[in-house]
Amino acid sequence: MADSASGDGVDPPVVVVVDAQTPGNVGTIARSMKNFGFSDLRLIDPPELDPEGEAYGYAGQAREDILPNASETTLEAVTDQYHTVGFTAVTNEDGSSHVRFPFTTPQELADSLPISAVPTALVFGREPTGLHNEELLMLDEVAAIPANPDYPVLNLGQAATIVLYELQELVLGDTQLPERDESYANPEEVERFHDHAETFLEEIEYPPEKRAKTGRLIRRLFGRVHPTGQELVTLRGVMRRAASDRRFETE
Amino acid sequence: MADSASGDGVDPPVVVVVDAQTPGNVGTIARSMKNFGFSDLRLIDPPELDPEGEAYGYAGQAREDILPNASETTLEAVTDQYHTVGFTAVTNEDGSSHVRFPFTTPQELADSLPISAVPTALVFGREPTGLHNEELLMLDEVAAIPANPDYPVLNLGQAATIVLYELQELVLGDTQLPERDESYANPEEVERFHDHAETFLEEIEYPPEKRAKTGRLIRRLFGRVHPTGQELVTLRGVMRRAASDRRFETE
Repeated sequence: MADSASGDGVDPPVVVVVDAQTPGNVGTIARSMKNFGFSDLRLIDPPELDPEGEAYGYAGQAREDILPNASETTLEAVTDQYHTVGFTAVTNEDGSSHVRFPFTTPQELADSLPISAVPTALVFGREPTGLHNEELLMLDEVAAIPANPDYPVLNLGQAATIVLYELQELVLGDTQLPERDESYANPEEVERFHDHAETFLEEIEYPPEKRAKTGRLIRRLFGRVHPTGQELVTLRGVMRRAASDRRFETE
Repeated sequence: MADSASGDGVDPPVVVVVDAQTPGNVGTIARSMKNFGFSDLRLIDPPELDPEGEAYGYAGQAREDILPNASETTLEAVTDQYHTVGFTAVTNEDGSSHVRFPFTTPQELADSLPISAVPTALVFGREPTGLHNEELLMLDEVAAIPANPDYPVLNLGQAATIVLYELQELVLGDTQLPERDESYANPEEVERFHDHAETFLEEIEYPPEKRAKTGRLIRRLFGRVHPTGQELVTLRGVMRRAASDRRFETE
């Protein structure tokens, strides 16, 4: 298996693409893999991947590693080595059939796949009809992406992008997004803000009979919005400024 | 606004694409819209969309409605009419800045956007650098897609596909996936299965001292797997068959 791209030493699932017709979709899948922390791409009956062509054009930075390192394989070799999950758009079956039912959703896979213990392969294919029943029967688990009942057909690159997005939490410890938690105002800061707002209404000589109701409105508004500490500090500065102007005017 | 594509009369958010450079990405976005129940596409500074070209080639069935019905607009017109959410990959800011922070994730939007009450526009753009700060400043809310810290750059079509996937529950009542709940075995069926398995171990003269432990193993295994009623019925048929053969052999 390829070197792990994740921080905690777990090998991310390998990504297997069966019988892609268009090189562009292989490039899109490689780009999504890179974006969400996957690294090992295996191709079954791939199209020609010209370094000057669409696959490399769509791959973003994955053109430098994932795409040139992709290897060719067979479905038999993959099922021998991995717990295999096949993805399909169509599963109009019920409990009396066992090819595409019961299915797992990508979100459920994120909670259930034991990838740290069991080498896992995510199997996508084929254009335009998806994996065949004979192929799905060789795989351990079937997953289906929820979609519009009137039009449940993503292309191969879109389907893989969604699945890899959902599974990124399995392979990436942290994402590129900064931490928000410590930015949110704590309850004490929020209370100080409301106390300040109440004082402010007095200072600006807001009609006394309306103050309680307006105070409640402000409390509800800020209760919904989850303000940051910085937002409250800034708004308190605004109130101080407004009240001091007011005091100056009325003196 | 366009006619609603959803069953419950709620207009899905409009999708706004700012300054797409490649027609293929516009087609990919139209296809994802169709797949996840969105219908109204607005384009700002779009590329030429040739009916024989890439946009229509990538749009799947959306080439028949969403793409030809797409209208051109301006960011000012959109912000006047809609609650606007801008999507970005990069938000290396903290609470002291207010352009890209605090951000919302697509998953959080699915829980929080009041689309039945407030007309909403999802704003994507621009290639290759994403929405500019001046554009984000015009929008009400900023959302960011979590990704690999080493490579947080999806292309425009991939980013929109993920967001529309996450928001499909806002606009689609049901997806195309069949109902699974009624297929799962109920606790009574599961208990009957375990009773049968216990009897089966007796019938096949499984070593008595191992029966309890093997029964526990079977209980744990089926406890994790959430079997369907049909699976248990079939397995009970297998046990009946195996035990009757056995009875026949030993008679």
